[in-house]
Amino acid sequence: MKKKVFSILVENTSGVLSHVSGLFSRRGYNIDSFSAGVTADPRFTRMTIVASGDELILEQIEKQLAKLEDVVDIKVLEPTQSVTRELMLVKIKATEESDNVFFSFAEHLEQYHGKSVDVDLPNGVVVVEMTGNHDKLDAYLADLQAAGYEILELARTGITGLSRGTKDVRCFD
Amino acid sequence: MKKKVFSILVENTSGVLSHVSGLFSRRGYNIDSFSAGVTADPRFTRMTIVASGDELILEQIEKQLAKLEDVVDIKVLEPTQSVTRELMLVKIKATEESDNVFFSFAEHLEQYHGKSVDVDLPNGVVVVEMTGNHDKLDAYLADLQAAGYEILELARTGITGLSRGTKDVRCFD
Repeated sequence: MKKKVFSILVENTSGVLSHVSGLFSRRGYNIDSFSAGVTADPRFTRMTIVASGDELILEQIEKQLAKLEDVVDIKVLEPTQSVTRELMLVKIKATEESDNVFFSFAEHLEQYHGKSVDVDLPNGVVVVEMTGNHDKLDAYLADLQAAGYEILELARTGITGLSRGTKDVRCFD
Repeated sequence: MKKKVFSILVENTSGVLSHVSGLFSRRGYNIDSFSAGVTADPRFTRMTIVASGDELILEQIEKQLAKLEDVVDIKVLEPTQSVTRELMLVKIKATEESDNVFFSFAEHLEQYHGKSVDVDLPNGVVVVEMTGNHDKLDAYLADLQAAGYEILELARTGITGLSRGTKDVRCFD
């Protein structure tokens, strides 16, 4: 199983999300991550889709996506030639087990360049915001759980990405 | 037109994205923002959907979403009782017009708590990573364009969010 990150520029039609997701569900392709956001041009949305499968499946996905009428541009983001990031909000509860490491909670958070965005001291609950690649966010959560913290809620955006440099830039004009 | 932020917990079925997006496209509901990410429990994904419409439409959307078989839990994130954030990667090019404000580019970036994640000095191109609420990201982009910078590419994740405090926590057990 390989993974590929597809960055697609689509027209802002009311059916575009449905067309793209329908392609994956009809053919049973796996979506590992999905995000969509507005671009500088209000006519277009950029979707970032991480899909997994063997080489043949991934090639088919790329071809099928390119065939969709709403898809204006499609790029595969290669790991070494692109920047990919994900945003996570996580609601964490201190427990009796984790009480003795309260100081290192803040230090640990700083090491991961995260920040607290909401604190409910009486209940020992903190909401943390963190960005990074997928593995970094997973590692932070694993560390927390190993230190006895409880993860109450988790919201992640899915991955977004851009190619490095200027060679692949898709101009809107 | 009002906006509502729906945070839904869904089962990880291959058709779930298609079911959710199909509901919106069939009925012509507007999606302003969409993001989806894994949760601490691999059986579930959390989707955050910002929809716009009048009060009646927004109520219908909530009811229809709740009826979907894959939807395990649905919450409306109220602005004052929740934290919402979006992640953006933006590829920026300095132009002749913007050359005289190079120093303030870095200062301005710091004020917005953004950071450079890729720099291509010979071509005057920088990739910036920034998180914030939707309006903050829009304001940063507007500032840049007013200062003569060119936005080459933009990738945004769509909004994700969590309620503040502990009262609404959805436990997995």
